[in-house]
Amino acid sequence: MSLFSFEAWLASQSQRAENALLQYLDSDTAIPQHLHSAMRYAVLGGGKRIRPLLVFAASELGSVDQVDGSLVNRAASAIEMIHTYSLVHDDLPCMDDDDLRRGRPTVHKAYDEATALLVGDALQTRAFEILSYPVGPDPKTGFAQLRMIASLAHASGSKGMAGGQAIDLQNVGKKMDLPALEEMHAMKTGALLICAVQLGGIAAQLSNPAMAQLDTYAKAIGLAFQVVDDILDATADSATLGKTAGKDAAQDKPTYVTLKGLDYANELANELKGRALNSLNEFGPQADALRHIAHLVVDRKK
Amino acid sequence: MSLFSFEAWLASQSQRAENALLQYLDSDTAIPQHLHSAMRYAVLGGGKRIRPLLVFAASELGSVDQVDGSLVNRAASAIEMIHTYSLVHDDLPCMDDDDLRRGRPTVHKAYDEATALLVGDALQTRAFEILSYPVGPDPKTGFAQLRMIASLAHASGSKGMAGGQAIDLQNVGKKMDLPALEEMHAMKTGALLICAVQLGGIAAQLSNPAMAQLDTYAKAIGLAFQVVDDILDATADSATLGKTAGKDAAQDKPTYVTLKGLDYANELANELKGRALNSLNEFGPQADALRHIAHLVVDRKK
Repeated sequence: MSLFSFEAWLASQSQRAENALLQYLDSDTAIPQHLHSAMRYAVLGGGKRIRPLLVFAASELGSVDQVDGSLVNRAASAIEMIHTYSLVHDDLPCMDDDDLRRGRPTVHKAYDEATALLVGDALQTRAFEILSYPVGPDPKTGFAQLRMIASLAHASGSKGMAGGQAIDLQNVGKKMDLPALEEMHAMKTGALLICAVQLGGIAAQLSNPAMAQLDTYAKAIGLAFQVVDDILDATADSATLGKTAGKDAAQDKPTYVTLKGLDYANELANELKGRALNSLNEFGPQADALRHIAHLVVDRKK
Repeated sequence: MSLFSFEAWLASQSQRAENALLQYLDSDTAIPQHLHSAMRYAVLGGGKRIRPLLVFAASELGSVDQVDGSLVNRAASAIEMIHTYSLVHDDLPCMDDDDLRRGRPTVHKAYDEATALLVGDALQTRAFEILSYPVGPDPKTGFAQLRMIASLAHASGSKGMAGGQAIDLQNVGKKMDLPALEEMHAMKTGALLICAVQLGGIAAQLSNPAMAQLDTYAKAIGLAFQVVDDILDATADSATLGKTAGKDAAQDKPTYVTLKGLDYANELANELKGRALNSLNEFGPQADALRHIAHLVVDRKK
């Protein structure tokens, strides 16, 4: 990993994610302007862009001349739009009822509830739209697009992200045991992170065994991501997080910290980081970005 | 049209729509059961299935041996799921705040608001999912799937259905003129009806001129559909409609009836029916189902 500067990679690829989102979001002069400006407010308000970064990092496992950069950019934008739609809807009063997101008013606070509902709806639609066009003459690209749409839909639907959210809501105030908690997080957060590396892997035309190793990697960092979220909710302040801290305990939500304590959670996060790194053993320096992202996910402070 | 029994066609194709929806909805034993049972409640509660019927009718313009019946069934299910997701979200308190739909409690009344939100979200995802698989080896089918996804996303997103809904909400209580009203309906309702015939046309591998004629047909019946909705809201009772009647006037919504009166609206609906029928002149008896649907849309009583 000596020759690879993750800082430089992170800076360039984060910029690439912003550029792609700017390219694939409609302009705020498009009709209706109110809705399109709210969609841009929701998506362009910062965020770690961890899913686009995972798409980019996984796509580097393919040979440079075989990877379609435009397709990778569209995949990165699509998955970030899906993630953003889920945040906008989760923040609504009938769900988590949150006023603050990424240090700014949530969409229903900056606009209104009806607009926030439509913003989430239309962002989901837009994600699938940008993966469906242009319908070019190359069957290989066409099939890659279809596989991406299938992966993103499966990961975000009723058996993935939305299903996990439904289970989460049904368990507020209830005692969940650890297996149930892990299953819920695997659906709510993990599925979309696995999807991110799959999208990159599809663009890179990876073999099935290589895709399976990526899945193992993503499962580990997906769970680590949630464990670290729980730790930060319990230990950081709202200003650092850019969102309301301490909500889990206040709402009596089952988390790794409330169920098993801070020490256990910290230990688990580090163990998961090791599992993620091990799963990349058969890849060479092309996987360095993925390795650094595993560190980033576990060692982040917000 | 003498040999064609529309009654028999309608009965068999309505049943085909129900069967397809049953096939492509997840079972209510799938985890999470609560969410999947609510999704089935939303979709399987009746409804005219006008969009699936349009998909089926348009697909009949192709030669029987070339049309992939499974793809047509998936397209019909997908567009009905998109339509249903929009109804579930439109009924929410922050939108139209409706308690009754198709003669039964709306989803947020039968379940709760958070579940209704997730039901709509997950139905949208499911629509795109069933159009994306199976990714078979035939490029022609693959490209048809991509074109269907692109069409459905464009019709239902921020420049189509969701955008029209946003414009509608911004104009409650305001005076809209007729061109603005038509533009709003073209987005909110018309786009998805045009999409329905496009999906059938894509499956039938129609030529571009034939697709253009279908678009003219669908634009006319799309507008007619809305004009008749306005007429029924003003003239029918809630029991007949299966939803709350008289809401437009009560909410001071601009409609064809409130703006131009009942006589004008009735005349317009009939003129649009004529326009729809004219656009089918170059098709033979294969277009009989589409012809009858134009009558059905305008002459319906609910």
